This record gives sequence, C-alpha cells and structure tokens, in this order.
Amino acid sequence: MFVAINYISCKEDYKIRFEQLMSSRAKEVDTMPGFIRMEVLKPNDTHNDYLIVSHWVTEDHFINWKKSEQFMKGHKRGFEDIVNARKDGNEPPMKSTFKTYRILSD
Amino acid sequence: MFVAINYISCKEDYKIRFEQLMSSRAKEVDTMPGFIRMEVLKPNDTHNDYLIVSHWVTEDHFINWKKSEQFMKGHKRGFEDIVNARKDGNEPPMKSTFKTYRILSD
Repeated sequence: MFVAINYISCKEDYKIRFEQLMSSRAKEVDTMPGFIRMEVLKPNDTHNDYLIVSHWVTEDHFINWKKSEQFMKGHKRGFEDIVNARKDGNEPPMKSTFKTYRILSD
Repeated sequence: MFVAINYISCKEDYKIRFEQLMSSRAKEVDTMPGFIRMEVLKPNDTHNDYLIVSHWVTEDHFINWKKSEQFMKGHKRGFEDIVNARKDGNEPPMKSTFKTYRILSD
C-alpha cells in the first residue's frame, strides 16, 4: 500500500476558507482507480500544518490521479484562490508539499 | 476521533534497527481502551521522518495510554537503545515529536 501526505500551511486569515473547502470537498479523488481512503487532519496546535492523508493501492495509482482531470476538478476552488491572490500581487494563501510513504507495519 | 502522529527522526545507522523494532512491535497499544488503529509509515525520501500514526476515540484515551504501563512496555527496547547511547556519551539514535490532530473530513 502507498500513502501520500499533502502538508498544507495556510495563512491565518485563510484557515476558515480552507476548512470550508475541505469539509465540502468535491470527492473527485474517491472515484479514481486504486484509491483506498482519505482523511483531512486539522492540527490541534495551530502552528502545525494541516495534513491530507491518502491511501492508494500503488504509487502508480497516485501518480495517475495527480495527472488526471479529476485532480484539476477536485482542486478547482483552491487553485482559483491562489491565482486570484497572485493577480492581486499577494502571496498564495496556502502552500502544499507532498511527501510519500509505504506502510512498514500496522 | 483523535489522531496522534509521532514524527521519528533516526540516525542513518539506526534505521535498520528502528525498522526491526517497528516490524516486531509489542502491540501493547492495541490492547488500550479507546485505541482504534495504528500505522507505521516509512518515508520514500530518506530525509523525511518516519511517522507512527495512531487513531483514538478521544484525546483522553491517548493521554491515558501515554501514562500507562503498556506505553513503557511497548517502548522498552527503543528506550533502552536511547539510554545505552547516553551511557556511551553518544547522541540518542532517534528523536521523536508527537503532534495531534482531529479529523476535519474524510
């Protein structure tokens, strides 16, 4: 099994919007071949990143999703917020970094 | 639901030992009230931390585990490695940091 974690750092004034996007997420990813499950984790210490943790059958399934139309559709609202911030000459309201893992034991 | 992630940074020459400990873990935690599941994640990029991700019914269940006899028993071998390194005047072979989360959506 393959696990991808997207580490999301949000500007303070974007957190409510980000949480709204996550709570009403498009669920496009859930339809992808090889998708097992996803959880969005909110840190109890507000200095830490939000984590979007997804489980996949193989790394290839994850890579296929990142290249897919569903990836673009699922991230549409967040991407628009980033584009709009740039248009206004502002920093992006969130930054994300993917790290990937395999399960050593459970 | 409550999620705790233990971020583990290992010295390069301790990684094989750490993986052996994790693959043969004592499973003491699995007997604790409120325990749901645990996964040990190995990073594909060796610069990143190992993650020990545990799910609990509530934060109190997690706190009870950290104070329990089972916590001491489950970490016995790793704690001994740290104590022995200190005795020899060396840095601990691994460092760990807990961060805690709640599930925003799945």
